[in-house]
Amino acid sequence: MKQLIGIIGAGECNSRIYALARETGALVAKNGFGIVCGGLGGVMEGAARGCKENGGLSIGIIPQEKAEFANEFIDIVIPTGMGIMRNMLVVSSAVGLIAIDGKYGTLSEIAFALQLGKPVVGLQTWDVSDKIVTVENPVQAVETLIKMFQTKH
Amino acid sequence: MKQLIGIIGAGECNSRIYALARETGALVAKNGFGIVCGGLGGVMEGAARGCKENGGLSIGIIPQEKAEFANEFIDIVIPTGMGIMRNMLVVSSAVGLIAIDGKYGTLSEIAFALQLGKPVVGLQTWDVSDKIVTVENPVQAVETLIKMFQTKH
Amino acid sequence: MKQLIGIIGAGECNSRIYALARETGALVAKNGFGIVCGGLGGVMEGAARGCKENGGLSIGIIPQEKAEFANEFIDIVIPTGMGIMRNMLVVSSAVGLIAIDGKYGTLSEIAFALQLGKPVVGLQTWDVSDKIVTVENPVQAVETLIKMFQTKH
Amino acid sequence: MKQLIGIIGAGECNSRIYALARETGALVAKNGFGIVCGGLGGVMEGAARGCKENGGLSIGIIPQEKAEFANEFIDIVIPTGMGIMRNMLVVSSAVGLIAIDGKYGTLSEIAFALQLGKPVVGLQTWDVSDKIVTVENPVQAVETLIKMFQTKH
Repeated sequence: MKQLIGIIGAGECNSRIYALARETGALVAKNGFGIVCGGLGGVMEGAARGCKENGGLSIGIIPQEKAEFANEFIDIVIPTGMGIMRNMLVVSSAVGLIAIDGKYGTLSEIAFALQLGKPVVGLQTWDVSDKIVTVENPVQAVETLIKMFQTKH
Repeated sequence: MKQLIGIIGAGECNSRIYALARETGALVAKNGFGIVCGGLGGVMEGAARGCKENGGLSIGIIPQEKAEFANEFIDIVIPTGMGIMRNMLVVSSAVGLIAIDGKYGTLSEIAFALQLGKPVVGLQTWDVSDKIVTVENPVQAVETLIKMFQTKH
Repeated sequence: MKQLIGIIGAGECNSRIYALARETGALVAKNGFGIVCGGLGGVMEGAARGCKENGGLSIGIIPQEKAEFANEFIDIVIPTGMGIMRNMLVVSSAVGLIAIDGKYGTLSEIAFALQLGKPVVGLQTWDVSDKIVTVENPVQAVETLIKMFQTKH
Repeated sequence: MKQLIGIIGAGECNSRIYALARETGALVAKNGFGIVCGGLGGVMEGAARGCKENGGLSIGIIPQEKAEFANEFIDIVIPTGMGIMRNMLVVSSAVGLIAIDGKYGTLSEIAFALQLGKPVVGLQTWDVSDKIVTVENPVQAVETLIKMFQTKH
């Protein structure tokens, strides 16, 4: 069974945040994990792109009912037709989450992750709980998250 | 069409918080609105109780598939079988939300409300955005929220 | 706690089917129950209209995220934003279902009801299982359904 | 983007049906598609097993919130915590569906597929619409379904 790391963030972002997401996706793939994300633009696209460029598998769980709304770097689309409620599925499909920047959707995902007791690492994102481990860069983000959920099991 | 005010908070709480929820539910009913909540214990029970004691209508949208898990003060149960994902439905059914205390589930509801652009009033709860209007007591909470969504429309 | 009878059928129907739905909604209200339905047009509107005209309470669980899509006879709207997946919630909120005519959405609701072991009465609808009790008219439909779920409890 | 064929059927089945599911999963993999299924036992396990044995990718969308409930042949688990409502996601993730035997859950999936206009092929399953193309064996099932959705696009 493939383990998936969730990469969460807004559907629109600047190029600096996009680059962080892409590097994070790349590192997840290089560490042998797949990614799961919301499948749309911005951080989700950056993460899927970095993952794909490094031979990783990316899952996109999108709000729409039709697969065509997913970004072009997603390997497996789960079109839900359930709107923003799909945020919860990104969380439940992941062994842990890396939040990059992000708005209210990202906040809802962080909340669900904490409720389900899943590790959350934060990169320039919501600072709402001391359970979110703040990191400085993608390398730290991926290393820290992997340690967190491996310790847990 | 009956307008519903969402009252959100944790399923377990101390008697002081329970009393705040009960008073809030009472005031919502006295102002002619119904309440919608997660239908379980703690703040949800206090809110439904205060509402019912004052002739209001309370809707409980619960995680379980069977109605019997709702608290005894709920008039209409929507048993979902969809777990914590039902948090989103509490938000989408309300014209605005009053958050009282609360943990991660409440945080996810606040996040969804802000994402959907619904007014949120906070009573001793998560302080994660300046869009949440902080109030001191149930009277202020209900008055403020009613003004907020009436201004909006 | 108010008990709800689910009335299911297509969002578009001819005037004969609409009249059957309206009469069924009326009889549900006269028997002291509320109705739950999908909240849109056709059979759902007929059912809610008959219910409202007789002082009953009607709940509409709609696919959209915004309440304004509900028909005008719905008292309580649950806007879900989850598309046709909301069909399941109409079933889980009801003590039993009356299916009138209907297309594939109705078929999915019948399937969920049978899976959850809830009584289903059919009026000119899908005949896919001998667990669906076929009736001739709204009077029989409501009487039969009430007997079925009261026997069950 | 990987195209997924949905294989649907009951969570418990006899060895003859299990063998049909396994052969179907194998043929889907040999034709270069992945499978998506409900991720549990019976037909879902048979399908995932046949797929995995032939180098295919299998996605399991399960009712539970925890991945550990998936069968051992699933490569990617989407744990939903949303109960039988997840049936809809199996449908929305697939380009078309092969139904094998099956009970009410399968019927709900067939209904959703027809509602979304997706091709459905049936192997000893519910015969509720002439839109379901009945076939005699797994070879016919996979060939027919592939033709159906390729014609559509």
